[in-house]
Amino acid sequence: MREHLTTRSDADLFLRDFRSLSRIGETPGGGVDRQAATVADAQARAWFTTLLGQYGFTVEVDAIGNVFGLLEWNPGAPYVLVGSHLDSQPLAGKFDGAYGVAAALHAGRRLAVGRAAGHRPTYNLAVVDWFNEEGSRFAPSMMGSSVFTGKMKTADALATRDADGVTVAEALASIGHTGSGAGPVAAACAEIHIEQGRSLEESGTTIGLVHSCWAAEKFTVTVHGEQAHTGSTVIADRRDALLGASRLVVLLRELADRYPDGVLHTSVGQLTVLPNSPVVVPRQVDLTMDLRSADEEVLAEAKQLLEQGIKVIEDEVNVRIEADTSHAWGVRPYPTAGVGLARACADSLGVSSRPVHTLAGHDSINMNDVVPTVMLFVPSREGVSHNEGEFTEDADLCAGVDVLTEVVRRLCEGALDD
Amino acid sequence: MREHLTTRSDADLFLRDFRSLSRIGETPGGGVDRQAATVADAQARAWFTTLLGQYGFTVEVDAIGNVFGLLEWNPGAPYVLVGSHLDSQPLAGKFDGAYGVAAALHAGRRLAVGRAAGHRPTYNLAVVDWFNEEGSRFAPSMMGSSVFTGKMKTADALATRDADGVTVAEALASIGHTGSGAGPVAAACAEIHIEQGRSLEESGTTIGLVHSCWAAEKFTVTVHGEQAHTGSTVIADRRDALLGASRLVVLLRELADRYPDGVLHTSVGQLTVLPNSPVVVPRQVDLTMDLRSADEEVLAEAKQLLEQGIKVIEDEVNVRIEADTSHAWGVRPYPTAGVGLARACADSLGVSSRPVHTLAGHDSINMNDVVPTVMLFVPSREGVSHNEGEFTEDADLCAGVDVLTEVVRRLCEGALDD
Repeated sequence: MREHLTTRSDADLFLRDFRSLSRIGETPGGGVDRQAATVADAQARAWFTTLLGQYGFTVEVDAIGNVFGLLEWNPGAPYVLVGSHLDSQPLAGKFDGAYGVAAALHAGRRLAVGRAAGHRPTYNLAVVDWFNEEGSRFAPSMMGSSVFTGKMKTADALATRDADGVTVAEALASIGHTGSGAGPVAAACAEIHIEQGRSLEESGTTIGLVHSCWAAEKFTVTVHGEQAHTGSTVIADRRDALLGASRLVVLLRELADRYPDGVLHTSVGQLTVLPNSPVVVPRQVDLTMDLRSADEEVLAEAKQLLEQGIKVIEDEVNVRIEADTSHAWGVRPYPTAGVGLARACADSLGVSSRPVHTLAGHDSINMNDVVPTVMLFVPSREGVSHNEGEFTEDADLCAGVDVLTEVVRRLCEGALDD
Repeated sequence: MREHLTTRSDADLFLRDFRSLSRIGETPGGGVDRQAATVADAQARAWFTTLLGQYGFTVEVDAIGNVFGLLEWNPGAPYVLVGSHLDSQPLAGKFDGAYGVAAALHAGRRLAVGRAAGHRPTYNLAVVDWFNEEGSRFAPSMMGSSVFTGKMKTADALATRDADGVTVAEALASIGHTGSGAGPVAAACAEIHIEQGRSLEESGTTIGLVHSCWAAEKFTVTVHGEQAHTGSTVIADRRDALLGASRLVVLLRELADRYPDGVLHTSVGQLTVLPNSPVVVPRQVDLTMDLRSADEEVLAEAKQLLEQGIKVIEDEVNVRIEADTSHAWGVRPYPTAGVGLARACADSLGVSSRPVHTLAGHDSINMNDVVPTVMLFVPSREGVSHNEGEFTEDADLCAGVDVLTEVVRRLCEGALDD
């Protein structure tokens, strides 16, 4: 039973498919740009469905555009879901999400090829591309898995608009991926991803066994000022929305700096100025704030300090600031049994592993709330991510596929059943 | 000779034409949006050329798209140029620029109607719409008058691109306003504009006699950082371009706050984030900075402090900041004789006046460098400008046209000749 995991041809086949995926939406800077339901994302999804067909899977698209490749070994039984996401940030790397889908596809292919005739695992297998994990075009992130797990209503997700006013429903229709239904019934879940941090690289470890996620709280913020002439309007009369927004960006970093490095991460990634003309004091700024910590008390304290700071800024800059939580999740452990299972799989293959936590959000965080879930990492060079320079060595990519294949095989046999 | 200045029908005709102009590019917020060489600007220019034809002017468009309405009373003689600009900021008011063109059109019309048969003034008259005074779509501002006065090369102006990569030449061609030549030879210039400040309203004065302009220096700035994941990237590893830009916005206001109110005006009006996604630490921010003062020494000192501050930000935020001067002008007096002439005209009509300076830039600042120039203001309610809420009373608008008509009449007679 083990030969299918380590043959040269499996690795070559995986790398061939992953490289063809990496060329879709390629950027001059060596990365990819495949935001959700764009032409590039459609091409990546076509890459996925074509290979699913070639490798013997049945393709299904659910109502929010998640793509499933199904292998029904045990008619009527629930499914082990394994996958990640093909969409990317703008000007992003080739590995974030895409590696996890390619690895899942090949884990499934290898399990199908290697299955002994007549053997019927406890669970069926579904390889999945979760729709819009990144949230850069349509907020919030992790949209497909949020709908799948019942955390977001399908209708609300489909009605979400991008900056040009296009809805998710319209965008999915435009790429021919309007689906229906709620997808397969899940029994367990697995995801593999690049670490997007330095701990594996620095410790010389191949596989990260994710034991918990950081808590996160994201806000959409509008700063309301008053449009005026930059030359003629005296400073005392100004209600400069961009000054208010800038004070907020600085405040957020000051909050992170109150704690030792690695305790609280704060950012503003998106900021839009209205009307955005060189000689006009801005009337309005829309921005997003992102706060994360492994310690929910730190996050709560930071949020309280943020609220106090917002009042000070409103008062000193003479603007009005509206901040609403758009997306949040708590610190949650992945099941200890799943971490142990993954460690046993890595050990059995002679691949090094160590426990890690995830600072970033992943679809598996949503899935972990509803079924036993295993999350694996492979190293990221210098921890670089959401950047065209993302890089993971081929040997690590292939070892990851090997371990994932074994994890999924055992999950299909019911290894995490109570 | 005076009856044409004060008859009811002149005022009614002016207000009728000005109201029809105000409806072009009207916004739901009660303002206008007519950025240079857009469809709305094209409609405003058609409004202008149609009325020029009806009122007996000959229309000429020069190579940078300035529109001139010519009345040639004295064949071969130079021209008194009177006008302002029809383009606007995005989401702007109905008065900025547009009032000055409508007032110039009516001053010219009234002088043509009232001219005694056979009388030949020293100079001919040209009513002008200066192209792209606002600079919001194509930087820098005051483009048409900069080319007219030789401060900017025609080819450079025509090659300037907007945010979508469209050149000025392409945009002018798209609205059918590709012109040629350098326009009429100027002998003198006049412009009337709303004050965009409070001094006339607060002192209960109808006409501002502009005696000098503030100095201004404008910069285009790029902050270079490194794209990264907002969740997983530790703070120490970040090179956040938006944090650098925000520190710069805050620094600029701190510079203004070093001086008593009204001494130094600083602003960032335009700021664009790349890639601008909620979960990505920004790689690059482009922004414009605007510094103005009536005191060139204050401006020089502020610039020096700014340069020092930029070094601190580069060091503390771990970003690189490029700042280049894009447009600058010094403190310059308008000719005393012109201020005296304008005062005499106001007095002769029983209209109150007082000396003021202009904090904003105007096309007349360019013209003042090459020919004797008179600049007049009418009151702005609460000093509001570059805002849909701009407002000036009809009575003030009409009094402004009356005084401008008399100023232009005297300029055409050679009143400012040495």
